[in-house]
Parts: sequence; C-alpha cells; structure tokens
Amino acid sequence: MTLPKAVVLLSGGMDSATTAAIAQRQGFDVHALSVRYGQRHAVELHAARRVAERLGVRHHVVLDLDLRAFGSSALTGDAPVPKDTPMADIGAGIPTTYVPARNTIFLSLALAWAETLDARDIFIGANALDYSGYPDCRPEYLDAYARMAALATRAGVEGGPVRIRAPLQSLTKSEIVRWGLALGLDFGITSTCYDPAADGAACGRCEACLLRLQGFEEAGVPDPARYQAAHA
Amino acid sequence: MTLPKAVVLLSGGMDSATTAAIAQRQGFDVHALSVRYGQRHAVELHAARRVAERLGVRHHVVLDLDLRAFGSSALTGDAPVPKDTPMADIGAGIPTTYVPARNTIFLSLALAWAETLDARDIFIGANALDYSGYPDCRPEYLDAYARMAALATRAGVEGGPVRIRAPLQSLTKSEIVRWGLALGLDFGITSTCYDPAADGAACGRCEACLLRLQGFEEAGVPDPARYQAAHA
Repeated sequence: MTLPKAVVLLSGGMDSATTAAIAQRQGFDVHALSVRYGQRHAVELHAARRVAERLGVRHHVVLDLDLRAFGSSALTGDAPVPKDTPMADIGAGIPTTYVPARNTIFLSLALAWAETLDARDIFIGANALDYSGYPDCRPEYLDAYARMAALATRAGVEGGPVRIRAPLQSLTKSEIVRWGLALGLDFGITSTCYDPAADGAACGRCEACLLRLQGFEEAGVPDPARYQAAHA
Repeated sequence: MTLPKAVVLLSGGMDSATTAAIAQRQGFDVHALSVRYGQRHAVELHAARRVAERLGVRHHVVLDLDLRAFGSSALTGDAPVPKDTPMADIGAGIPTTYVPARNTIFLSLALAWAETLDARDIFIGANALDYSGYPDCRPEYLDAYARMAALATRAGVEGGPVRIRAPLQSLTKSEIVRWGLALGLDFGITSTCYDPAADGAACGRCEACLLRLQGFEEAGVPDPARYQAAHA
C-alpha cells in the first residue's frame, strides 16, 4: 500500500518535530522541508537533520534562501535577542525576533514541493496560544493561506487542493510536550533556543526557551535539552 | 519629497519590464526583485539587470533560490519546451512550462522585502488574457493572495496592509506593447523566450515568443528583440 505523501515544515524546534511525528503517526509518507534562510543559529538545522533521521522520513530537503538580502531581524541579523522577558509580556506585541513573511515564504516553498510530489497535505507547527505574537501563526492567517493555495496550483485548478494542517494550532506548550512524548519523540534532539551557544546548548532566557521551559514544567516532566551553564 | 516605495517582481520579460515602468511612472520608488530559481535561461536575468539599470531603479536584488531541489519543469529541468503550438491552443490547459507555485513563492519573497522596506505596494506583471494557462496568473488567485498577505504581516496587524498590483491583468499583449512604448520602454532589452540561444537570441517558436510576436504584430510595430536565424 502506498501512503499518501505530505510535506512537513521542519525547523528542528519542538513544535515542528512534534508535527512531523504526528504526520507520520497519521499515516503520511513524510517529506520534510527545512530552510537555511540566514538564521544565525545554524544549530537548528542540525536539530532538523537529527529529527528527520530519527523519524526516518522519506526525504529531507534543506533549501538555501538567504533572506539577509532584504535586511535583518534578530533571527537573521545583528540585533540582540531579548532575554528574560516576563511571561505575561510574551505575545503582547510583535517581537523583534519576528522574521518578515517567514511562514508565508516557507508555506509557499512547501506548496511548490507538494505540487511536484502530487502531495495534498502540508503540515506546519504553527501555534496560536504560545505564539510569541507572530502574525503569521494565527488561525485566520492559515485559513487565508489555504484559500489562496487552492487557487494557486495545478491541483487547485484540476480538483483536490492542498490542505494546510496545523495540528498544534490551539494547543498549549505543555499539551505539545505531552503529545510529543506520547508519540515517542525525544525532545533532547530538538533545538528551540533563539540564541544557542556554538555547541548547541540553549540559553534558557530567550522567549522561545522561556515558553519551552514553562511547557515542560506544566507537563511535569524534565526538559532533556542541554542548557548553558549560566542557566543550569 | 520622499516617494512611496514599491517592490516590483522583475523577470526581464516584456510584461514585468512594462510593469516596472508603470510603477515608476505612477510615482513609486521602485525596488526590483528577480529570482535565480534554477531557470535554464539565465538570459532572462541578464535582461532583468538591463531593465533595472535602464529604468534607474533604486535597488535591484537578485535572490538565489534553487527550485530544482523539488524536481523539474520545462523551465528548470530537462523536458523540451513546446514549440509551434497553434495560437488557439495556447492557454487551453496548464502547459509543461508551468513552474509549481512560482508566483506564490515570488510574491512571498516580495512580501518579505516590502515589510522590511515598509513598502505598501507590490507590483507583478501577471496577465490573465494571454496568460498561457498558468493558474497563478488569474485575478481570483491574486485577490486571494492579497487577502492572505493582509493577515501575514506586521503591517497587516498594525493597519495598512500591502496591496498586490497587477496593472497588466486584463490587457492583451498588444495593449502591453503600446503602453510600454508610450512609457519609453525599449523592448529590445527584454527577454521573453522560454528557450533562448546562449547569446540571448529568442527562438521565435515557444509559446512565450508566439504570444509576444502576435502582440507586436497586432500593435503594428516591429519587435526589436533578436531572434535566431532559423526564425528570421
């Protein structure tokens, strides 16, 4: 029996790794897509490779696309990554770590690959609750993307448009931790930190680390990720 | 006085060159974007550079994005470019020269740059009449893209979404020729052919050449492009 193909956006973080594991458990033949977009933490691409290997996905493409040609953001440029933000303030505005149109670009690349593969499903780890205030993680954005994608492609014209699946959309970080663990995912191989050390150790103080640590704490399990000594 | 900024997708063909000239005439500070996506006719990127230089645009970015990682199409791979298609058959179906999700990817890159520049306008030379049957040139597609883009970005959240402008959308090729000439555009520096010779001479027989030649004929002016000897 041939499994239906799906393209899964895989950053190497805990959300996209969980999403890839979900896609696989739901019976999809996973084709994982990562993008080397000029992020200063190449550590996350190593994590994406580890996750793809561990899950044994069919194919993992790492695409080069240097978004630094357009200017910078904290994730691609030289601005400092905010640290120790109070939890109540995370998600209150659009943070400096927002990369312009990143999910739109990544979904569009996934759409191209899906059309080439004749895949009807694209998975993204977007999360609307603990979402750090990015506009392109909101449910209404993903719905609008799906409506556009249905008109954009050969499949959309000839019947059978692509579905944009965001299974973590309305989950808390602790629910994501529990779902990932239930699927047997080793979160120790994922990388969430916006500002990791060269050896991959997480800072424990950026918004991504703070949300992750809170998620593990609420789930009542230890985070297997390595953190920098100053944090531990 | 500071002109409003616009990002213009510039392939180097006659439609995008005319679109860039229109954006400039409408008073925009043009930022031109071309993509080296693995097209086998690098000739069109040379044309894009000539057009950007001739118009004197503020900035021209040529972004590298190798779509061959996803598989091929006639424009990026080894499949033969169809030649001598009867005019009545052009646009009747989606041709093999269709590149999956290309306009969606290009618009998404333009969206990222526009957000970085704080530009509110993106211009694309999409054309729905002589459009060769590409799904991502249709007005309903562009409308859906604009609705998605309004939700995708910081500008969309904070008020003042990006506008997707396709001034050639409902024009015939001959109308595009006339408008371009009225704006002083030298069509001799543009490259339309899907299968040009290494020296840039157009084949005169692919669908893009056939539509272009018909446009010039209907406009009653000679096409200043160079064509291969077999055609002339």
